[in-house]
Amino acid sequence: MIRIIVTGGTFDKTYDEIRGVLSFEDTHLPEMLRLGRSCVEVRMQTLMMLDSLEMTDADRELIVRHCVLSPETRIVITHGTDTMVETARIIAAGVQGKTVVLTGAMIPYAFGSSDGLFNLGSALSFAQVLPAGVYVAMNGQHFEWNRVRKNRATGVFEGI
Amino acid sequence: MIRIIVTGGTFDKTYDEIRGVLSFEDTHLPEMLRLGRSCVEVRMQTLMMLDSLEMTDADRELIVRHCVLSPETRIVITHGTDTMVETARIIAAGVQGKTVVLTGAMIPYAFGSSDGLFNLGSALSFAQVLPAGVYVAMNGQHFEWNRVRKNRATGVFEGI
Amino acid sequence: MIRIIVTGGTFDKTYDEIRGVLSFEDTHLPEMLRLGRSCVEVRMQTLMMLDSLEMTDADRELIVRHCVLSPETRIVITHGTDTMVETARIIAAGVQGKTVVLTGAMIPYAFGSSDGLFNLGSALSFAQVLPAGVYVAMNGQHFEWNRVRKNRATGVFEGI
Amino acid sequence: MIRIIVTGGTFDKTYDEIRGVLSFEDTHLPEMLRLGRSCVEVRMQTLMMLDSLEMTDADRELIVRHCVLSPETRIVITHGTDTMVETARIIAAGVQGKTVVLTGAMIPYAFGSSDGLFNLGSALSFAQVLPAGVYVAMNGQHFEWNRVRKNRATGVFEGI
Repeated sequence: MIRIIVTGGTFDKTYDEIRGVLSFEDTHLPEMLRLGRSCVEVRMQTLMMLDSLEMTDADRELIVRHCVLSPETRIVITHGTDTMVETARIIAAGVQGKTVVLTGAMIPYAFGSSDGLFNLGSALSFAQVLPAGVYVAMNGQHFEWNRVRKNRATGVFEGI
Repeated sequence: MIRIIVTGGTFDKTYDEIRGVLSFEDTHLPEMLRLGRSCVEVRMQTLMMLDSLEMTDADRELIVRHCVLSPETRIVITHGTDTMVETARIIAAGVQGKTVVLTGAMIPYAFGSSDGLFNLGSALSFAQVLPAGVYVAMNGQHFEWNRVRKNRATGVFEGI
Repeated sequence: MIRIIVTGGTFDKTYDEIRGVLSFEDTHLPEMLRLGRSCVEVRMQTLMMLDSLEMTDADRELIVRHCVLSPETRIVITHGTDTMVETARIIAAGVQGKTVVLTGAMIPYAFGSSDGLFNLGSALSFAQVLPAGVYVAMNGQHFEWNRVRKNRATGVFEGI
Repeated sequence: MIRIIVTGGTFDKTYDEIRGVLSFEDTHLPEMLRLGRSCVEVRMQTLMMLDSLEMTDADRELIVRHCVLSPETRIVITHGTDTMVETARIIAAGVQGKTVVLTGAMIPYAFGSSDGLFNLGSALSFAQVLPAGVYVAMNGQHFEWNRVRKNRATGVFEGI
């Protein structure tokens, strides 16, 4: 059983056709799992719906608390890419004995050309087999929380 | 470095608009990896383009041979779902010391609603972390070659 | 008010993931009209769900009868492309005083890359403004029923 | 022969994955015409790439001038929906003897769920058969320039 914690990010951005802007509505995760014909047993919760640039310390503490309290020891967190590494660091400081995998998307899932479905398949898979620790799963790869950064110029996560 | 061996299957079926039938053209794998913004180093080869119901013993021997000869020890094989388990069994008999992950799709990638991108993200991830062995990665899960079957009624791979 | 008569064709082909073949389920027309944010008042009926190569004289007579009986004088018919011109000829012989526009698709709507939505927007528009007559609307163009053929080699409808 | 004048609008908005915002790059019109298998002879020009809320009087004069100078007497203009009616009014004041059809989209074409392809098929079709005049083609319908408004609450164009 895997816990999925939704926090927003590009993953779940949608186009508000009345206002002509990107916004958040409900998460696309259930639809994505259905599309992927996923049979992984999951328990999903939407904790917040934020652009990760707007995430505060309090938001991160809330994420940590939910990781700690989760009876499931394997956790996937969907998260904006801009501060994913920072959140991973806070989680690593507060959560022990669990496998936590953060993932996100460069393109909203609602766009036809999103990387979201690929990343979700990847993150769910890593979460099932990696030992306890905090990881970022992006670009088909996984990184330990303290060995990764997002290259802002290319949009790619790379090892450090 | 991961070797990707393309053998066809629903994954790569495309719609031939002149003849009005499903057929094979080039593999969609490069486009899918680009869409997933994959940074996994891969070496890709198209070995055949077959509906897996038409795959012969000779075809399977060819797959085994390429697994054995591959300098990469981690291999992903895209394959039709109908006989994926049978091919996994043949590979398990002929290949040692390598991590081989077979995956496929229930819906062609060219269809908007395909599970292919999810499965590819999943298979590439499992292939990076699982120990040597032969596995099927479908529905977000992985199975050892001798512990899985495809449920023909539901289209889902399940453990046995 | 426009009558839409659904007869099947590539337009409505869907992928049967259990059997791995193209087949028909329900028509995609309502979803397509919703996607196009269409505000055209329509009355829709699914008369048959056929590959147009399998359409019989009796099927065509049924289509004619429904055109004749339709209280709406503007009619759009979705139809397989292979025998669209033949059906148009039969309708022209049996229906007077109405604007009948046949359209279809080269690629199933369920495929991401379908021409169906473009063709539907086109056919609905032609049906609103063309004078009484029987027309084929494909490739963004419209043709009178006796001045068009499908080029089997290119898949394009062309004037004769 | 139809002249297509591209001015931007939601139609052509794309997602800038590095900056995480909606922006403009090249127009999607050529790809859309290819997808629609359009055989309508067109001459296309990108005049500007603007959100229509940012369109100035000078921009509108430029559009008028290009309509006047166009040797083609049938013109389709892609345009943001917010001020489409206003631009239509300016064109009506400055252009005589030509059929000018403005269209746009509520959802960017790059989104999988766009109405753009439907609207393009519709606008191209209306442009081929309507008499000289200035029209808005949205929601599968066409309106004379002085008989339409955009309902901001519903996002739908309606007759007045």
